[in-house]
Amino acid sequence: MRAVDIIQKKRDGGELSREEIAFLVQGYSRGEIPDYQMSAWAMAVYFQGMNARETGDLTLEMAMSGDQVDLSPIAGIKVDKHSTGGVGDKTTVVLAPLVASAGVPVAKMSGRGLGHTGGTLDKLESISGLTVEMDQSRFFAQVGEIGVAVIGQSGNITPADKKLYALRDVTATVDSIPLIASSVMSKKIAAGADAIVLDVKTGSGAFMKTLNDSIALAKAMVDIGTQLGRHTVAVISDMDQPLGYGIGNALEVREGIDTLRGSGPADLTEVCLILGSQMLVLGGKAKDTDEARSILKARLEDGSALAKLKALVTAQGGDASQIDDPAKLPAASRQVEVKAAAEGHIEAIQAEEIGIAAMLLGAGRETKESQIDLAVGIVLAKKVGDAVSEGETLAVLHLNDASEAKVKEAESKVLEAYRITSQPVTPAPLVYAIVTKEGVTRF
Amino acid sequence: MRAVDIIQKKRDGGELSREEIAFLVQGYSRGEIPDYQMSAWAMAVYFQGMNARETGDLTLEMAMSGDQVDLSPIAGIKVDKHSTGGVGDKTTVVLAPLVASAGVPVAKMSGRGLGHTGGTLDKLESISGLTVEMDQSRFFAQVGEIGVAVIGQSGNITPADKKLYALRDVTATVDSIPLIASSVMSKKIAAGADAIVLDVKTGSGAFMKTLNDSIALAKAMVDIGTQLGRHTVAVISDMDQPLGYGIGNALEVREGIDTLRGSGPADLTEVCLILGSQMLVLGGKAKDTDEARSILKARLEDGSALAKLKALVTAQGGDASQIDDPAKLPAASRQVEVKAAAEGHIEAIQAEEIGIAAMLLGAGRETKESQIDLAVGIVLAKKVGDAVSEGETLAVLHLNDASEAKVKEAESKVLEAYRITSQPVTPAPLVYAIVTKEGVTRF
Repeated sequence: MRAVDIIQKKRDGGELSREEIAFLVQGYSRGEIPDYQMSAWAMAVYFQGMNARETGDLTLEMAMSGDQVDLSPIAGIKVDKHSTGGVGDKTTVVLAPLVASAGVPVAKMSGRGLGHTGGTLDKLESISGLTVEMDQSRFFAQVGEIGVAVIGQSGNITPADKKLYALRDVTATVDSIPLIASSVMSKKIAAGADAIVLDVKTGSGAFMKTLNDSIALAKAMVDIGTQLGRHTVAVISDMDQPLGYGIGNALEVREGIDTLRGSGPADLTEVCLILGSQMLVLGGKAKDTDEARSILKARLEDGSALAKLKALVTAQGGDASQIDDPAKLPAASRQVEVKAAAEGHIEAIQAEEIGIAAMLLGAGRETKESQIDLAVGIVLAKKVGDAVSEGETLAVLHLNDASEAKVKEAESKVLEAYRITSQPVTPAPLVYAIVTKEGVTRF
Repeated sequence: MRAVDIIQKKRDGGELSREEIAFLVQGYSRGEIPDYQMSAWAMAVYFQGMNARETGDLTLEMAMSGDQVDLSPIAGIKVDKHSTGGVGDKTTVVLAPLVASAGVPVAKMSGRGLGHTGGTLDKLESISGLTVEMDQSRFFAQVGEIGVAVIGQSGNITPADKKLYALRDVTATVDSIPLIASSVMSKKIAAGADAIVLDVKTGSGAFMKTLNDSIALAKAMVDIGTQLGRHTVAVISDMDQPLGYGIGNALEVREGIDTLRGSGPADLTEVCLILGSQMLVLGGKAKDTDEARSILKARLEDGSALAKLKALVTAQGGDASQIDDPAKLPAASRQVEVKAAAEGHIEAIQAEEIGIAAMLLGAGRETKESQIDLAVGIVLAKKVGDAVSEGETLAVLHLNDASEAKVKEAESKVLEAYRITSQPVTPAPLVYAIVTKEGVTRF
């Protein structure tokens, strides 16, 4: 078998066999197939695509390229959740304790992420003393004891995916649905999930800007899960504005706590109920999403979801009193209000611009080496559909030692992000569609 | 400027600017742009193509990547000829002295080639003592004195093309018309041609198997020549069977001598008259191809074309008596006749199979290090359209020390190459079309 022949086959629209895909991924992992052949192959895939079988095989080969976590010592159906990423997306902070409180074991390994704000790990580290580093036996023990643990990925998970992703990033071959889908799913499979709920964001602040592309990506990932025997459901949710009001690590934890208390923003609460309901059904704790939803609402109302977060924080060495009193969380030293230049109705909030503004204040990483300031970020005061008068506050910048130039830049990014119209505005739906192996249900 | 953005622009069907193409080619030459970006770009070009302007710019950048030969000290219009390669293609052996005898200066730098038989240099080296190595001043002086010289490429011609071609070869990105066209033309431009006649072969034994692909390649090369101010004409000639009868270095020189004597095979003679006529018109020695053709026929008949070959051989240190008596050329020690298994008419001769058979006998190079046996090869006895009876000789293998296994393999390749039918067969035309900047003339 020769790599050049496999590249040519894909270039000419052929279907690669399991053996051919294994030859490529294993050869590339071992350094026997050079970058220049993999990048040419990735570009051929960009143009010719891959069918569900090929994409599944690629996923499995990448999942098998490194360590594979065996969650079977933990009783129950382990349901993982993955978001394709958005601005203000703190759903994991809410969902992990929420679904654990309903009896679905949550053994979550998370990444730090390179983006506008930190990843779930960074957010949780806003809580004093909380650690996300632990060995596997303690991880398993904690899930056994309290039903939930959120830790950093350790070991050598999907090295083939890491190597291929880095190559795609510099060869204009990122934007390929089968390559994106297999990259995401390989990590979920290697992390040992029995079932997977995917939150595929769509809109201006998402990787996938259009609903059709988002559905295509969701379908590709559901197909992979189905082929590899993992029950997988994808929810297509809105990212045409940030989710909730807080953007920035401690600010997002605070909003997560509010939500677990039942007093969170309506959009965040609703998205968590929808995703959580799917997780409960896949985890075998509810016969359908209606039943799941009422279970979850009860857990929010009776305080057991919040109690689960406190148990998680305590088990991982954190200061649970900060959950009872979020004022103890890291707070920025200075607040700057960004004010509307005109009256009207909020028509759109470019989530990506808001994310960049938060990063300028220090909430996110520009490079792997960047230090995050956990306290800083942005709290929106107005969301799409809200009325605003001239001079009214649109958003508040929370900052510590950002230079005046950075603050001005962040301020103007926020102003640019807000589009104001004279006409009343109806906000877009929160969830557009749910994709299962049976098909697509649009709302 | 970043390579990844240029790759993405081409991936998305954009037109690259002169600056972007220069950035890629120069960066790649200097080793600043890695192979993995160039291969992804080449695959994007495979799918999205390049327009005439981009292809011309790529050609010029590659031509300028190394030494550029300045032929201006030689008086007259220097017309180069290039063949896309075929089996039994000895046209340069005939054309160089033929057009030189009609007053067009021929300052030809040739390659050795990796293929079924040697390149023009190998063929000429069948003549005892003949050297193809000389410095530029002697090269120019010889063209000045006798009007013709054929030497090996020296120096550092089009290193960017060499590097890119080697990369394309292992990344399934060879078969791209703009990339093929720019590769060929960059070498012609760097070699200093004022005008270029291209012999684009089409058919089973050619790189381009279909007439449409051959015309598309010819158009791309003519467009490049036009853009870069080199009058360029392409002749689309048949390679659905070998050209002439001899395949193998000395065997081909012998046939070239016959042709210069006026007693060569009809197909080889005709193709040389057609290509040579175009060269004479571009070289300003005839007002049209009809006039050019009668000049060339006269040069064959009056012996001046053959005399020019003898002058070339003598000037380059060779034994011109071998031209008068080709029996003195290297000859194989053994001949094996390949006989027809059935009677009928020759419908086709797969040129590529015949070429491989010749290579098995030692006539060509499998790798750069292979030693060529100049004496060996194949002489066809039957060509397309000929009638054959059972047991009659189809072809004769000329061999020295090939193993019996190799001989058997060559024999069966030759038998496979011949397709015999019961119906009478009309041979395909020798030339299908001529492509100029004005358009395509089909015959």
